[in-house]
Amino acid sequence: RSMATTARKSLTIGLIPADGIGREVIPAAREAILAVQSELPEVKFIDLLAGWETFTRTGVALPLETVQTLRDECDCALFGSVSSPSRKVAGYSSPIVALRKELDLYANIRPVCSVSADPARPPAVDLIVVRENTECLYVKDEKLIQTDNGKEARATRLITERASSRIGKIAFELAKARPRKLLTIIHKSNVLSVTDGLFRESVRAVPRGVNGKYDDVTIEEQLVDSAVYRLFREPQIFDVMVAPNLYGDIISDAAAALVGSLGVIPSINAGDAFVMGEPVHGSAPDIAGKGIANPVASIRSAALMLRHLGYTSAADKIDKAVNDTLAPADVLTADLGGTHSTAQVTDHIMNLIKH
Amino acid sequence: RSMATTARKSLTIGLIPADGIGREVIPAAREAILAVQSELPEVKFIDLLAGWETFTRTGVALPLETVQTLRDECDCALFGSVSSPSRKVAGYSSPIVALRKELDLYANIRPVCSVSADPARPPAVDLIVVRENTECLYVKDEKLIQTDNGKEARATRLITERASSRIGKIAFELAKARPRKLLTIIHKSNVLSVTDGLFRESVRAVPRGVNGKYDDVTIEEQLVDSAVYRLFREPQIFDVMVAPNLYGDIISDAAAALVGSLGVIPSINAGDAFVMGEPVHGSAPDIAGKGIANPVASIRSAALMLRHLGYTSAADKIDKAVNDTLAPADVLTADLGGTHSTAQVTDHIMNLIKH
Ligand SMILES: CC(C)[C@H](C(=O)O)[C@@H](O)C(=O)O
Ligand SMILES: CC(C)[C@H](C(=O)O)[C@@H](O)C(=O)O
Repeated sequence: RSMATTARKSLTIGLIPADGIGREVIPAAREAILAVQSELPEVKFIDLLAGWETFTRTGVALPLETVQTLRDECDCALFGSVSSPSRKVAGYSSPIVALRKELDLYANIRPVCSVSADPARPPAVDLIVVRENTECLYVKDEKLIQTDNGKEARATRLITERASSRIGKIAFELAKARPRKLLTIIHKSNVLSVTDGLFRESVRAVPRGVNGKYDDVTIEEQLVDSAVYRLFREPQIFDVMVAPNLYGDIISDAAAALVGSLGVIPSINAGDAFVMGEPVHGSAPDIAGKGIANPVASIRSAALMLRHLGYTSAADKIDKAVNDTLAPADVLTADLGGTHSTAQVTDHIMNLIKH
Repeated sequence: RSMATTARKSLTIGLIPADGIGREVIPAAREAILAVQSELPEVKFIDLLAGWETFTRTGVALPLETVQTLRDECDCALFGSVSSPSRKVAGYSSPIVALRKELDLYANIRPVCSVSADPARPPAVDLIVVRENTECLYVKDEKLIQTDNGKEARATRLITERASSRIGKIAFELAKARPRKLLTIIHKSNVLSVTDGLFRESVRAVPRGVNGKYDDVTIEEQLVDSAVYRLFREPQIFDVMVAPNLYGDIISDAAAALVGSLGVIPSINAGDAFVMGEPVHGSAPDIAGKGIANPVASIRSAALMLRHLGYTSAADKIDKAVNDTLAPADVLTADLGGTHSTAQVTDHIMNLIKH
């Protein structure tokens, strides 16, 4: 699945820090990529706008120029995080949800893995959430009507065979490449027998007609409520989890809680033609601007993006430096119980990459 | 909100064990009610059918007679748990979802509270999930169409001002009666600005026009993904959580994981005219028939139902006996790490009630 690297003479990366701590951590991811330049073709960065702050200044949350530049000039991108208003604001719509759709980044891949100080002990949590990224309630087809009994709102939840199959394929590929080769389908078909029924049937249909390719992958299922419960109680039962959009959103946050902090969880939004790294954490308005945000999620997102593009050795170098920082637990930001700043943790990781 | 008890000369309770371990734990709840008979008017039980097993025998998951008997002859009911087929079966639909709607049991109230032998052991969890019980994706308005690109399924998510207001009122009442008086509204209005926007606005509007009645209640909000994350990390920040149907389903399972086992979490499905106790756990096909299911969730559901009906001393007696069983942790079922059977734990609790 990784995109061919041989033909690429340069690697142009769009940087969209957007709001809040996104602006503090995307520069750290940029530094990490520069630190492994020797493993990459010539690297170029293009700074791009999006987000709530952009909206308040320009009236547009996702400028057309950002989308066009990503499409026409970039090989990949890194996205920070957006602050969304809690009330509906006319004309505003989440730019990250829009970007995923515009660029057809249909797979949101979120590995959650604990780092242990004792390398002999296997990680307590080692799973990947594979989240469908374009439909479910995220199609944002909502209507409000006024009745004699007050207001009534309706939203459409869309699940298609096509989108469920293609995310299923990604999930089978990832499961097949891992030691345990276990795929758990997350749904709620005891209530949503039609939509979630279609999701589960479409994923289950993936191995048919590919000549035994996935015969070694074990398929299991969990209802979403039960999956969250079991994630907390026995996370080791999960390997690769594939889920419709909203369940995937919730499950990846649940899994993140198991490994210490959302501040260490990376993701990529991947399509057939483009990939965008994105830390799973939000814009964290409470700590924004203080220089204490954890840069690890963004740095790992850069590595995950490079790995997806086929730059394995570059990704390995970054991941090793991150793990060698987290395991001894000497240089950590506040979310992990440390006292170090974003800059100090970033410098520490960069030094480990370089030496 | 509790229903007046003075006029009641007898208390008729419908018993619907349904499937799986429901059949093993509802009898324990029945015993608990009999053990506190002296605090109640004359108690009568009526056994009623529903569930997957009923469906396979009769072709109907929720017989009309069950609904009519509940409406015409019962003051309240206890429901066990249903096994649902994972594939869509023509004519089958979850009887619990149908019952909640038929009897307009719009509030699903799920208290989650940890009991520990060592009171110093954190984190102490003490919260109530107040789940809207009649709409959201549970309206089950789903359609499947065949397109040139394969199958497409759509489900409707319904949120009304009326249902959101009335669940909001229940939540404010519960919050006001608790020491911390904190109400957290759970939603995802950064994506679902119309439907979840209406939910949050309707809950926030509850205190308006009731003359300062809820002035002492603090209102907070959490996005559902973040709520699950924070539930795991810092459960003590929550007191009363109010949520649309599906988020409430997921959040109550997440909270249950924090206190040891789903096997101890009770709930009531409450409307203005009827109340039905229900353990939060499912039918647990893996352990059904073995006599090892935890009866605590059902026994506590009976207490919660009696409390809701105004029988406080009866409820207190049951709850005390349960807590005095859980705290020393000598007589426990397997889900809590014990070796005792359903019957042994039930007997132990009954003895504590009687002495
Ligand atoms: C910011 C929000 C729209 C987004 C989502 O729900 O997808 C976020 O929670 C995430 O997980 O990436
Ligand atoms: C059995 C199922 C339909 C039900 C629900 O989703 O409401 C259960 O999970 C619950 O929490 O009561």
